[in-house]
Amino acid sequence: MIYLDYAATTPVDERVLEAMTPYFCEVFANPSSNHSCGRKAARAVLKSRQSVADLIGASPEEIIFTGGASEATNLAIKGIADHFDEPMHFITSSFEHKATLSALHDLEKLGHEVTLVSPDRDGVVDPDDIEAAIQDNTVLISIIHVNNEIGTIQPIEEIGDLAAQYEILFHVDATQSFGKIPLDVESIGIDLLSLSAHKVYGPKGVGALYLREGIPVQAQISGGSQEGGIRAGTLNVPGIVGLGVAADLAGAEMEAEWNRLENLELSFLQLVQDRIGDVYLQGAHYSKVPWITNICFEGLDGGELRDALGDAGICVSRSSACAKSNTASHVLEAIECPKELSACAIRFSFGRKTTPERIQEALDTLEDVVMQMRGPDYESPVEPSVPS
Amino acid sequence: MIYLDYAATTPVDERVLEAMTPYFCEVFANPSSNHSCGRKAARAVLKSRQSVADLIGASPEEIIFTGGASEATNLAIKGIADHFDEPMHFITSSFEHKATLSALHDLEKLGHEVTLVSPDRDGVVDPDDIEAAIQDNTVLISIIHVNNEIGTIQPIEEIGDLAAQYEILFHVDATQSFGKIPLDVESIGIDLLSLSAHKVYGPKGVGALYLREGIPVQAQISGGSQEGGIRAGTLNVPGIVGLGVAADLAGAEMEAEWNRLENLELSFLQLVQDRIGDVYLQGAHYSKVPWITNICFEGLDGGELRDALGDAGICVSRSSACAKSNTASHVLEAIECPKELSACAIRFSFGRKTTPERIQEALDTLEDVVMQMRGPDYESPVEPSVPS
Repeated sequence: MIYLDYAATTPVDERVLEAMTPYFCEVFANPSSNHSCGRKAARAVLKSRQSVADLIGASPEEIIFTGGASEATNLAIKGIADHFDEPMHFITSSFEHKATLSALHDLEKLGHEVTLVSPDRDGVVDPDDIEAAIQDNTVLISIIHVNNEIGTIQPIEEIGDLAAQYEILFHVDATQSFGKIPLDVESIGIDLLSLSAHKVYGPKGVGALYLREGIPVQAQISGGSQEGGIRAGTLNVPGIVGLGVAADLAGAEMEAEWNRLENLELSFLQLVQDRIGDVYLQGAHYSKVPWITNICFEGLDGGELRDALGDAGICVSRSSACAKSNTASHVLEAIECPKELSACAIRFSFGRKTTPERIQEALDTLEDVVMQMRGPDYESPVEPSVPS
Repeated sequence: MIYLDYAATTPVDERVLEAMTPYFCEVFANPSSNHSCGRKAARAVLKSRQSVADLIGASPEEIIFTGGASEATNLAIKGIADHFDEPMHFITSSFEHKATLSALHDLEKLGHEVTLVSPDRDGVVDPDDIEAAIQDNTVLISIIHVNNEIGTIQPIEEIGDLAAQYEILFHVDATQSFGKIPLDVESIGIDLLSLSAHKVYGPKGVGALYLREGIPVQAQISGGSQEGGIRAGTLNVPGIVGLGVAADLAGAEMEAEWNRLENLELSFLQLVQDRIGDVYLQGAHYSKVPWITNICFEGLDGGELRDALGDAGICVSRSSACAKSNTASHVLEAIECPKELSACAIRFSFGRKTTPERIQEALDTLEDVVMQMRGPDYESPVEPSVPS
């Protein structure tokens, strides 16, 4: 199998698993326990808190460990809203991850107001559109840093400036960017940031919310006094250790990995265009991470293509793994990708084990599968579905 | 170190870790991904769902995986409340785990009403008191099966009958009983049940909510369509596999382990009484699990005793690891344990690696430490703090 679905999840790095292993059966105590076994576990948690904080320019006390990025995003959005008795106003984009859109939808049911700002056809949100949406009672702007389906990078610096200027809180969903793009919450002016371990070679079931000191957020999982009372529940020590080591490794390898994947994507795109043709990249190349590549294949059905690729040993997605399969992608809809194109879109996503050799193999298979599906009578459209 | 804090958390069983290991680096795909790698992970999740369901007499579709028992309890309580626009009424006991009490406190802030029923001095809730608390708008009774600080078993069968009779939903916090006491949600009439992996030799960071088919619960973590839309977020595949195997093992070893720990506790209690004296067991022995033993040591400070035992290599707790250290135990307060006694309480909790030999060693140390702390001039009180 050739796995090209790193945006859905990544394998745990062997070095991460090695670091986690002693915390299952040996250093297993509850880090909240007031005895030496507990304190040993608590020290490991503290070390990870520092690692995560370091990677985003935060302080360790500003890191709240959660069960994942969806929980962190829900905590950020609902935890802010719960502080207000009056209906407040929230701004986000229409192509966020479902965790953001659904959490905000829950707030609408409670009487809060939400404005969805549309990205442009390139897949980038215009800060002017955010500014135009600001109201007197706007309390939070929530923006995805790297879109999970098309890989476009949002102008969070400009949006951070706006948020600061209007004294509005700013939440960034960094699930796809944490450990992959330099992030500094101080210089960007981020107040809350959600992240996940399993997108960055750490384990599933653990994530974190960065919460700037002094910002009041109400716990969504109430109970014990863990995490400053903001997130109850026994700390997942092995998972947290894994997240910390994953953060350390990602930080050390970030630049080299970006460059490696950039070269790899360039050659992939070039070869797909040359050898297959009638393909359309979604998301502007000028503002995109190189490891998420959303391509529409003229004349094909995306679901059938994904399944045929799967049968041929290549794992790819149509859109987000979190979305219901076989429904239209709300991301491609948001960037006004024509329906006939979004129906034939495939997301390729690359990672640490994606080598040039694997890409060549994948391309050979992809060419075979697409050519066979298009059939011998396939003719390029006179008028392509999108301007090239 | 001798670990006698199994009620706070347990080590992961080596067989559980072995079963989990392939799901970190090898079978690592997102189980929501629609390709063969994803489906392999999804099959492992399904197997665990069946294991957890089997152990409590449920169907696999009725198991919602969560990040732990605190999350499951919050989901049960708030998820039910969110279905009502009107203020509703909830019944629980005053010595529940903080997850239950805090979740219900959150509901009170939203206008709902909560009645706390007091347990008796033995640490058992009287079903008649529950019945007396029922109102026309009571929607949920939530009861802890085995109290986490004193180990008393609550009469959930009788409470289940009541709930059925009055058509009120019944939630059981089975964090300390799952995999340790036979549980059948059908025959007991349980509608929702919270459980955790790490209390039963599974990993931290994973738990589940049993949710009877057809009962409407609103997601608290919104987003992707995982877990029937009731709990969003990428499934923690290794953790879920661990929970499943932990459930299988616990089911197979349940009866033998109960009997073994019962003998062990009996001899422990006898020897503590004989060799140390002036000790008072909290929680009635007639309705208690044998692995949680809360003992007050006349004349001592519980915090100092715990620390001295820790220095001597024995890990025990004062109360719940989730509670803030050095505040009075709300559980001992609820059973009207006199303040001077609750101040000298220690929770011993036993598990798979607690052998008779370890207990003997622990007793020797305990005797030394208590005798030294009481000092040579110690005299038994003429009037003991509680009637023996």
